[in-house]
This record gives sequence, structure tokens and C-alpha cells, in this order.
Amino acid sequence: MAPSKESGALAELFKSFAQNFPDDGNVYKQRAIYDQVHKAASEAPGVSYEDIHIAGGIPCKWVRPEGASKKHAIVFMHGGGFSFGSTNGHRKLAAHLAKACNCLALSVEYRLTPEHVYPAALDDCVTAYQWLLDQGFEAKNIVTAGDSCGGGLSTTVPLAAVKRGLPKPGAAVSISPWYDLTGAGETMTINEANDVLNTKPFVAELAKRYTKNAKMEDPLISALFASEDELRQLPPHWISAGGYDMLLDNATRFAEKAKKAGLEVVLEIQEGQQHVMEFMAGMAPEADESLRKIGEWVRQRIGS
Amino acid sequence: MAPSKESGALAELFKSFAQNFPDDGNVYKQRAIYDQVHKAASEAPGVSYEDIHIAGGIPCKWVRPEGASKKHAIVFMHGGGFSFGSTNGHRKLAAHLAKACNCLALSVEYRLTPEHVYPAALDDCVTAYQWLLDQGFEAKNIVTAGDSCGGGLSTTVPLAAVKRGLPKPGAAVSISPWYDLTGAGETMTINEANDVLNTKPFVAELAKRYTKNAKMEDPLISALFASEDELRQLPPHWISAGGYDMLLDNATRFAEKAKKAGLEVVLEIQEGQQHVMEFMAGMAPEADESLRKIGEWVRQRIGS
Repeated sequence: MAPSKESGALAELFKSFAQNFPDDGNVYKQRAIYDQVHKAASEAPGVSYEDIHIAGGIPCKWVRPEGASKKHAIVFMHGGGFSFGSTNGHRKLAAHLAKACNCLALSVEYRLTPEHVYPAALDDCVTAYQWLLDQGFEAKNIVTAGDSCGGGLSTTVPLAAVKRGLPKPGAAVSISPWYDLTGAGETMTINEANDVLNTKPFVAELAKRYTKNAKMEDPLISALFASEDELRQLPPHWISAGGYDMLLDNATRFAEKAKKAGLEVVLEIQEGQQHVMEFMAGMAPEADESLRKIGEWVRQRIGS
Repeated sequence: MAPSKESGALAELFKSFAQNFPDDGNVYKQRAIYDQVHKAASEAPGVSYEDIHIAGGIPCKWVRPEGASKKHAIVFMHGGGFSFGSTNGHRKLAAHLAKACNCLALSVEYRLTPEHVYPAALDDCVTAYQWLLDQGFEAKNIVTAGDSCGGGLSTTVPLAAVKRGLPKPGAAVSISPWYDLTGAGETMTINEANDVLNTKPFVAELAKRYTKNAKMEDPLISALFASEDELRQLPPHWISAGGYDMLLDNATRFAEKAKKAGLEVVLEIQEGQQHVMEFMAGMAPEADESLRKIGEWVRQRIGS
């Protein structure tokens, strides 16, 4: 299916980011600009928010669709290369997702690079998952979900949780996930001219900010390198990616490996679309359709 | 009363704006940075949003507190010197205000300078007011409200509406209003060292962007210059301002004039506080107390 006219808006927004990102690496300005990603989406009617601090001070935003199940929750982890993005700029995506899944979402304001390197982000998100368990949510009623680096966390959080002796969540949703911080993969080159947000040096810089002295091939950093045994410990995965996304084969390579290990994986490629086209929730038919499918799949998995 | 410890956060946020605003006048970056003003506030629990387009395409955000009256509405006009600010960055302030007033708010994404000069912003906001009347809201059940330049619009919108033969709204709430674009007033100098957001050249530049070839003394631009007759046509006013605000005597001079003309005006000065301290809704006791008082006053005026 050819991309809708509406869906061109995301490429335009990303172009404006690329044009205005400061050259000097000033993260204050980068974060302010990237937060404007909310503009791609419309507000999700009937969804309200509450800012809270959990477990010793991690800021989180409760995302509450009217009438949704209060026994089921998404741990939502925003994208932004571990260095920017926020529960504010991603609130609409989290809200549309929670609505589609008919459950709550707890969106995590995890610590960012360069101030906080690996494993700060992962630790905060695992803590959020643990906190939900402590509040009485059953593991099987919890979904890890996110976009880009947050899509990576959707997989590394269950992996880390299991390693720490916690039960695994009921499902994972990884939207345009960043699964390979080494920067390998054919689509990094094939889509270089199609992807208006990312560039090789930009992706490499963000990977370096996160990993610092850690190994990029650590499966808790790059889920692509998880072993068969590790993959088998994961919950069922829904993975989507854009056809024009440089990170496209982060998704496809992981999906292939995970399927081979016996994991239930649904992989949806959005032809001709940019990185995280679901940002256009409420604005472009492809985004709404993707979220509708995700919602249907999640509700079947967790019973929300 | 000495300012609370919490209320220092607004000065810190404003300082970070001042440090990061681009020197080259790039409004894209200025808007992205200023939109981070939302950080001063917490989300207002139980409030949901909907993005709509009204009357030929003006984007607006419905702000809907759970259980609030659906017969009463605020026309909310954000601040940002007519050049930045948005329904996004100001949504929390609008939400806390609507909740306190127990009514809906229609937050207007009016056109900004320098792309659109006077009367674009005023026209869009009067259109939003007219649209509410067209939807069946009674004039007496509508409140014009806003902060800074939006606080100015809270007064100029009723003035323009009456001039166009529309009935006046039931009340107006002007938070740290910008009533005098000529830049006059003692507090522009007295508070120069106390106000961490504004500077004389910055305020003058914003005034020039808005007025271009129009007269700054036009009462539809600077409500301070409204005649006694015009002032008498206005709805009752609640006006608040910060003690450290360079625009403080925009509020006090207007309040004095309006009272002399026989208008009901409540004036509240927030000792030691910055411009629009109500930004700290949900975060600092002074902001919550101010919004509580505003809500009480508005509910008495419009019966919400």
C-alpha cells in the first residue's frame, strides 16, 4: 500500500529536527527540539495523566484511558537514542497505545545520556516493572512497550527482569526497535537516503553515549545478541518497523533469530514509512491501523 | 509570606531558557525551548484533551476535567510574547485552571509572530469566543483567561468582541498580563534584576514583532490605554502578578484605571514571585493557592 498523504508529515517534522539540532551537541537544545515529536500525533481523547515518583524517586507518568482495565498495564519507554525524549513528548503515543490495549500505561522518565550511561536507563525501567509487580499487577498482565531505544528496552527489560529472578511480562511491543548498537545491518546503508531522521554518525554517537565502556554486543544493550536460551525466556513480541527506517533490519534480524529460537514474534513492516511512524497516532491512517493491530494482539495476549 | 522552597524552581527554569535562547532570533528553537515551560507544572489528574479545528481551521485543544460542567467554558490563551508558547506547553496550566473553575477550557493555538502580526492573534481568539457562542455556550458562562500576552488577550478579546456586537463574557482572568506594549512602567526598571525571564530589549523586540505598523497604544493591543467607556464594557476581572515581574505594574496600573471606571477587579500580587508563577500548578503551594482562589472567584461569577 502506498503511504498516505497524511503520513508525509512525519518526514517533514524529522527534517525540521535535522535542520535545527545544534551542532555543538548541546543536549538541552536537542531535548527541547526532539520533544516537539508530540506534534506528529493528536491528543488521545478520554485519556488523562498523572505525574508520580516511584521507588525512591524515578519520575513516571500514569497514562489512564477512561474505562480501561486497571489490572493491566504497559511499562512505556520512550525513544530518543537514550539521550533525549521524555514522557511529555511521547505522552500522546503512550496514550493512543494504552487506549488501543485497553489498559493503563506507566511511562518512565528514565535517566538519559550523556549524564547517565548504561545501565541507568535499563535499571530505571526494570525498577518500574518491579514497582508494578509490587503494586499487585500480575506479571502476565504487564506489557513492556516502547519505540526506538524504548523498543530495545521493551526486550532488554524482560531479559534483565528474568536474570534478576522476576517473572516475565505477558507481552512486549517494540516499535522501530534499536536492537543493535554496533551500527551493523544492511539497512543502515540501504535506507541512508530514505531515513530523514537518522544518519550513521548520529546513531554511532548515540550508541557511544549510552555504552561508554560497556560492550555494545551485551544482550542487555543490544538485544540482537541474545542467545537462544535468552530469547526463549522472553514474552511474545510484536515488532513493527518502517520500510524507510535505517534501523529496519534491527527489527528483521532480531525477529528471525527470535522465531528460530521458538519465540512468538509478529513482525510488521510499514512500507515507505519513517522511523516510528506510530508517532502519527490520530493523524495518519497507517499509524492508527498499526496501533489498532497492536491493541488487538496485546488484548489477546494479556486479556485486557 | 516568604516564597516557598518549591517556588524557586520557576526561576531556575526561566534561567535555563535565558541561557539557551538562540541569539539569532531563530523562532523554531525559541518555541521548542519555551514549550518546556510545561516542566514547571505537574499533570492535572482526571483531565483529558482533544485536538480540534474550529471555524475554518484554527487549531484548538479542548481541556476536559472529569465531572466538570459542560455548560461553562474558558477561552484559554497561552503566553509567550505572541511569538512562542502553545496549547501543548501550556496544557497543564490550562488543565489546572479548568479544574479549579469546574468547567471546560478551549485552548487556542492562535497565530504567532513574526509570521503573523496584529491582529492575527486577537482575531483567532475572538473567533474562538464566537465559536463557543455558536456552539450554544451562553456568554455569561464563558471566561476569557490567559497568562502574559494571553493575559492581555483575556481583556482585549472581550473588548474586541463587544466592539463587534457580541455579548461580553462572564468573567476574565489575567495572569501576569501584558497590558502595555510600549514598555513603560516603573517595574520594568525596578524588577529588572529580579525578573529572570524578561529583559527590556527582549520585551521591546516582542512588542515590535506583534505590532509592526500598528499603534502600541491601541487598546486592542495594550489594554492599559482603554478609555473609561471601554473599561466599563468589560466583564469582572481577576488579575494576578508576580512581585518580581517586570510586567508587575502592567497589572497594577490597569487595575487602578479599571477600578476607577467602576469595573469589578480583584488584584493579587504574589510577593517575591516570577512572571506567571501559576505555571507551577501542582508543584508549588503559591500556584495552587492562586488557582484555588481564581477557581472560587470564577465559579461565583459564572455559576460553574
